[in-house]
Amino acid sequence: MKTKAVLDESQIPTHWYNIVADFPVPPPPPLHPGTHEPLTPDDLIAIFPMGLIAQEASSERWIEIPEPVREIYKLWRPSPLYRARRLEAALGTPARIYYKYEGVSPVGSHKLNSAVPQAYFNLLDGRKRLTTETGAGQWGAALALACQFFGLKCDVWQVQGSFDSKPYRRMQMETYGATVVGSPSELTESGRALRERFPGTAGSLGMAISEAIEAAAGDPEASYSLGSVLNHVTLHQSVIGQELVLQLKEFGEEMPDALYACAGGGSNLAGIAFPILRENLEGRANTRVVACEPKAAPSLTEGEYKYDFGDTAHLTPLLKMYSLGPDFVPAAVHAGGLRYHGMSPLVSHAYDQGLIEAISIKQREAFAAGVTFSRAEGIIPASESNHAIAGALREARKAIETGESPVIVIGVSGSGQLDLPAYADFLAGTMADS
Amino acid sequence: MKTKAVLDESQIPTHWYNIVADFPVPPPPPLHPGTHEPLTPDDLIAIFPMGLIAQEASSERWIEIPEPVREIYKLWRPSPLYRARRLEAALGTPARIYYKYEGVSPVGSHKLNSAVPQAYFNLLDGRKRLTTETGAGQWGAALALACQFFGLKCDVWQVQGSFDSKPYRRMQMETYGATVVGSPSELTESGRALRERFPGTAGSLGMAISEAIEAAAGDPEASYSLGSVLNHVTLHQSVIGQELVLQLKEFGEEMPDALYACAGGGSNLAGIAFPILRENLEGRANTRVVACEPKAAPSLTEGEYKYDFGDTAHLTPLLKMYSLGPDFVPAAVHAGGLRYHGMSPLVSHAYDQGLIEAISIKQREAFAAGVTFSRAEGIIPASESNHAIAGALREARKAIETGESPVIVIGVSGSGQLDLPAYADFLAGTMADS
Repeated sequence: MKTKAVLDESQIPTHWYNIVADFPVPPPPPLHPGTHEPLTPDDLIAIFPMGLIAQEASSERWIEIPEPVREIYKLWRPSPLYRARRLEAALGTPARIYYKYEGVSPVGSHKLNSAVPQAYFNLLDGRKRLTTETGAGQWGAALALACQFFGLKCDVWQVQGSFDSKPYRRMQMETYGATVVGSPSELTESGRALRERFPGTAGSLGMAISEAIEAAAGDPEASYSLGSVLNHVTLHQSVIGQELVLQLKEFGEEMPDALYACAGGGSNLAGIAFPILRENLEGRANTRVVACEPKAAPSLTEGEYKYDFGDTAHLTPLLKMYSLGPDFVPAAVHAGGLRYHGMSPLVSHAYDQGLIEAISIKQREAFAAGVTFSRAEGIIPASESNHAIAGALREARKAIETGESPVIVIGVSGSGQLDLPAYADFLAGTMADS
Repeated sequence: MKTKAVLDESQIPTHWYNIVADFPVPPPPPLHPGTHEPLTPDDLIAIFPMGLIAQEASSERWIEIPEPVREIYKLWRPSPLYRARRLEAALGTPARIYYKYEGVSPVGSHKLNSAVPQAYFNLLDGRKRLTTETGAGQWGAALALACQFFGLKCDVWQVQGSFDSKPYRRMQMETYGATVVGSPSELTESGRALRERFPGTAGSLGMAISEAIEAAAGDPEASYSLGSVLNHVTLHQSVIGQELVLQLKEFGEEMPDALYACAGGGSNLAGIAFPILRENLEGRANTRVVACEPKAAPSLTEGEYKYDFGDTAHLTPLLKMYSLGPDFVPAAVHAGGLRYHGMSPLVSHAYDQGLIEAISIKQREAFAAGVTFSRAEGIIPASESNHAIAGALREARKAIETGESPVIVIGVSGSGQLDLPAYADFLAGTMADS
């Protein structure tokens, strides 16, 4: 019985897919924070290279993947699609469950799909150094490696709480040659101001973004690099969903009935779901796309859809998105990179237009699902991915009652090898139910 | 340009390869420790199931892989073979370097190749519980998962030094449902005796083996399970080398000029090398096989070839092997599971017969190679694997001088995601040169 579809590396997509070309209603543009006018490319040139600015504003449906990027994608892509036969048996469900596993990337998550082109377009633009933020560390590790591949310097501001509790991630970034500091730090004006305003804070992604932007804006050879939220990031991640469409055919399946993906800033969800949404919009599929977010950072399910800042110090453009506000500091739940106050404008627009659904999951349910998955399939999923698995398990268990056999796809965005302390917390029964 | 050969899961080998059938001189048999007569199957029945005892004594060339084992192999096999183009460029070597990567298994190492059939044959024999030892934790994690797959209980004695310094491995084993204790423990007679004889000891694999054997021998429903050294373990690992032969052809290569693999107990080396030795013995190849061991546990390069015990309490049969003696306690080097006093009898025999070579590597050279590899290829290799990479880099750098273009294959036995503190030690310049 077929367990996984791997595809040959020659089947890595040649183009990224841009959903902006297919939305029935165009998404609201980003605004300049001073003038509240739509942003122009010039407004971004201090912190982004031209190649990425062009992608950010593009409404072309297909954007070619440069050959040097595709060559590096070959180190781990195509990522495998698995039929979760052992999980189905463990649950006793008639559902047919598949999962697309991005943990095969050398850094252990989907983040490398965007880190590599971001480093590449910065190199083309003559930049020598990238600054970025990271929460759990998946994005920081990805950018550290991508910078190493292209000979760029990489400086990472890591949310202080993660910096202290996840030393392995820092070691991983340093092994790839990056420098890592806890945020808020003494190295930037915004960091110093945040330390004064919130003494002893464990930090937040919004704070770390402020610091990384400030550092890039003050260095003409540097760019800022963001691991989620923005249009060009969701664009790069579209390789995931494009491969999924091919791989389902290898199993003899049509489009899935439901697709579950975790959502923090939105890059993983967009990457696996937008190519499927295109199938929906063109009438070739009728897939329910379900964004799974942590109950402790519920931007889609409990946030407000409005123009808001992406960072705490208000250095970013204004983005129309579901947001909990840039001062939001999430509870100390094990949700990794999902602990962000906002949501990708394109994912937000899709949700606002009724093209996707959203649910929120408490961490105990997420980790119970992760342990069930680990023991059946072997792979220990990332904290983030457990939210998608938990959502899918709800539907798979419901199918036991209804007797239906839906085809369910789960986006497993990464490996949980470096999230093991969270699993230990869950298994010890000491995890808060938040 | 082709970067990796993955093969379809239908190309997973259907049989394990047993080199005993092809050795020009038969290997010396194991001896009963009391009578010094060759061991009989009955001598092993208290601690091993019949299926594995038969494999241990077999001289059949091909042994069929049971379908339930092959089905589980599909979760990660065939493992990829990479052309290390980026590493070649970083070194500036004319050598063509390939690496076979076993870190894609859900536990992150080659150990699962043997853990799954061991659990399966125990299930067939009606055993309910497996006991084992683990050093760095790669084997313990693999057996924990394999037991979970087949519904067996798993009790792991982990070398105390690793138990204390590597909490993530313990958490991984517990996530898979195993129980883990530090060794020597208070739970066994041999553990208590060892604690009295060596107060405050950090333990050793030899000690942990004694405890696990004693626990299995005292429970009629239990078996003992060993992750290396024995013939049936090297047999199971032969899937690695068989896939390698097919994958080299996908790159248009004949057999390699040299094959580098790390060697502790010998299972990884045997797995990748024995199918290549067969090609040598049948005249289809002329590959130099180089065992790479840590300078701090140099059984092949500095040990004595003699009948010796596999454990500290002298509970095992006598095995003819290169050994540093069962009381050997290695220095606290970052060599993971390579820190064992003995060497697989089949690997020892191959070395004694001049069929393979051996070198030893100090840990700083190993980790320097690991960092070079990580930054070029993205994958952070296991501590063990770094020894093989270091050996290969010596040859690749020599090729710069000679101008020759040897084809070099490296066995990368696992992922180093859980070895990051060792990388941090190296990068900080605080690693001892031992």
